[in-house]
Amino acid sequence: MKIICSQSELKNNLSLVSRAVPGRPTHPILANVLLVADSEKNTVTLTGFDLSLGMRTSFAAEVEQEGNITIPAKLFNDIVTRLPEGEITISFDPDDLDDNPLVAIESMYGKFQLRGVSGEEFPELPTVEKEEALMLPVTSLSEGLKGSLFAASNDEAKQVLTGIHLTRNLDTLEFAATDGHRLAVVKTTDEKEASEDGDGNSEDNTDDISISEEQNFTMTIPARALRELEKILTLAKEEDNVALYVDDGQVVFELGLQNLTSRKLDGAYPNYNQLIPTAFDRTMVVERKRLIESLERVSVLLDQKNNMVKFSIDADNGQLFLSVEANELGNAKESISAEITGDNFEIGFNIRYLMDGLKALSSNDITFHFNGPIQPVIVTPLSGLQMTYLIMPVKL
Amino acid sequence: MKIICSQSELKNNLSLVSRAVPGRPTHPILANVLLVADSEKNTVTLTGFDLSLGMRTSFAAEVEQEGNITIPAKLFNDIVTRLPEGEITISFDPDDLDDNPLVAIESMYGKFQLRGVSGEEFPELPTVEKEEALMLPVTSLSEGLKGSLFAASNDEAKQVLTGIHLTRNLDTLEFAATDGHRLAVVKTTDEKEASEDGDGNSEDNTDDISISEEQNFTMTIPARALRELEKILTLAKEEDNVALYVDDGQVVFELGLQNLTSRKLDGAYPNYNQLIPTAFDRTMVVERKRLIESLERVSVLLDQKNNMVKFSIDADNGQLFLSVEANELGNAKESISAEITGDNFEIGFNIRYLMDGLKALSSNDITFHFNGPIQPVIVTPLSGLQMTYLIMPVKL
Repeated sequence: MKIICSQSELKNNLSLVSRAVPGRPTHPILANVLLVADSEKNTVTLTGFDLSLGMRTSFAAEVEQEGNITIPAKLFNDIVTRLPEGEITISFDPDDLDDNPLVAIESMYGKFQLRGVSGEEFPELPTVEKEEALMLPVTSLSEGLKGSLFAASNDEAKQVLTGIHLTRNLDTLEFAATDGHRLAVVKTTDEKEASEDGDGNSEDNTDDISISEEQNFTMTIPARALRELEKILTLAKEEDNVALYVDDGQVVFELGLQNLTSRKLDGAYPNYNQLIPTAFDRTMVVERKRLIESLERVSVLLDQKNNMVKFSIDADNGQLFLSVEANELGNAKESISAEITGDNFEIGFNIRYLMDGLKALSSNDITFHFNGPIQPVIVTPLSGLQMTYLIMPVKL
Repeated sequence: MKIICSQSELKNNLSLVSRAVPGRPTHPILANVLLVADSEKNTVTLTGFDLSLGMRTSFAAEVEQEGNITIPAKLFNDIVTRLPEGEITISFDPDDLDDNPLVAIESMYGKFQLRGVSGEEFPELPTVEKEEALMLPVTSLSEGLKGSLFAASNDEAKQVLTGIHLTRNLDTLEFAATDGHRLAVVKTTDEKEASEDGDGNSEDNTDDISISEEQNFTMTIPARALRELEKILTLAKEEDNVALYVDDGQVVFELGLQNLTSRKLDGAYPNYNQLIPTAFDRTMVVERKRLIESLERVSVLLDQKNNMVKFSIDADNGQLFLSVEANELGNAKESISAEITGDNFEIGFNIRYLMDGLKALSSNDITFHFNGPIQPVIVTPLSGLQMTYLIMPVKL
């Protein structure tokens, strides 16, 4: 095998697939990336795979001799990142009968040799049989992920709650995540306007993201995989679409030459819609950034036991008072003007859960919807994205 | 006590003195900063002290009622950093007979209350009796510290080696540091040109930094204190001078309203000058940055046991070859062009010790001076600062 490629192309693609390489691999070869050189297409394809999440990406290269090999991902990454810009040659001797041939990585300054492992030993990425792709606009996907990923559970024991629940129903795609303490739901709609900005073929573009009932689905995808998808999306253009292929066990997202495969999570997802109250006794509109800044300040004096911030809602004067109390150390109190309906009222929150939601919301002003002091609270943006954040209060 | 001051002034001064506040204080009050409000001068003075290193700084404030108090440094810092720009009021009721009064910190948005401890309980900073100050130019001090601090030992058991040895001899100030594996020596000279840039009173200025034999000294100051001094110096102007007061046990550095006190280290410092060879069989001039970059690359494949990089010096072709070998993983080799005198030669270095020295040197080109492969090697800059870096080779 012998390829010549640009350092920056190799660096960017390698850092991408390296995200799927597990830190503590269950099998040694999973700590490697698979490199496949195709002399017909003159491309190099890199793959990282942890048996659940797989990432694959291709880029153009001069392939003098085709072949495949796996290389320790971390070392390979560390070396390529430090190499000077310009041409890099990667090669090994296919007549080397050793299963672990020395792979040479050469730049203008010198030569690294890394012990590789034959590509035959690398597990195959699962494929999805279904031929038909569902086209999802990059903007909808990004918004949905930003508004939900933070609320998924990090506790592997919670199984299906470590994922994002996706529901496609005609032209809406709904993202939901909950860890049992809070729930975030985002509804995105395929924006047809996007296609009209294009080359005038709005008919064709609309076909691309055409909706049929057969394409409706619900499924739960590990948040870990979707966090990586979110990073890939930051590299895409707003008007791009992501192709989604689904079968019983797997999903595949494709954006250009980048490809992310993930297993789906089994098990019934909680019926979260029934948890969201629809009628409220009180509402409060506040400026989101101002509230975040106040919470960041008072959190310095948070009681480490319950992380609680108290909201004292003064409807008469249109003021929200935030206070925290760290018994031994001191206390803090700030006030923010707010538009309040309903009577005066006190309620407590876990400041961390509250902050997570406030940061994921994107509008300038947000509305809190309250019933009693121990009933679920709903936070929604005043405009823009359709997001619902449900948070359980803490007893005062 | 009641003072009104600017958030940014308070923040900057507090973050400075907080550096002297120990992470694990031997006595609880040392985790606090002392705040003294002087209504005559309308200044606030902050002090942090870990019994070895003390930092004190003053700034202008509106002192409505004088007084003093100590406040937990970390919380105080965390709060002040987050407060909005503008006026901050700090106060407590002196009639509060509690030894731990609640200190109020108020901004336009709200009020924090922190439990303080009476200022009477804070230990006095040691004073230096000697009235006469030695004026040291900021540039000499900065250069001397940059070229030596990295080589001091971090091992508290090594006592005097955890310090920088300072020798003042007429118009030169010499900085030396060693941890037993390498030695860095910097000689700085009072630059009289600096004073001529001033207001024309070069006579007067020369008097300011006048030198008398009585002011000669040798002493060892903890590197920890001098690292903090180095940070203070980054805030100074190049033409500033630092006043140094010395007595038997203490040193005090003064720059404007900032004041750093440190105990001196007891014990005889090694007679390092006799370790530095003066005659060499071989020399090699290389580009410093290029060598650092190569070392950073090959260090990816460093053997974790001995951290060794091998220099193969090819005098015939004017090339330096660097190589590392990580048995199981692979190897790396780079080459750099060099001006070499003497014959071909191989020598090994601990890459970390080598890098530390290369980074502290500031010239574009540097000279390596060699004798045999197990004899001390000297690295010096080709121009600029008078620095000598001695490093012991590693056996190949």
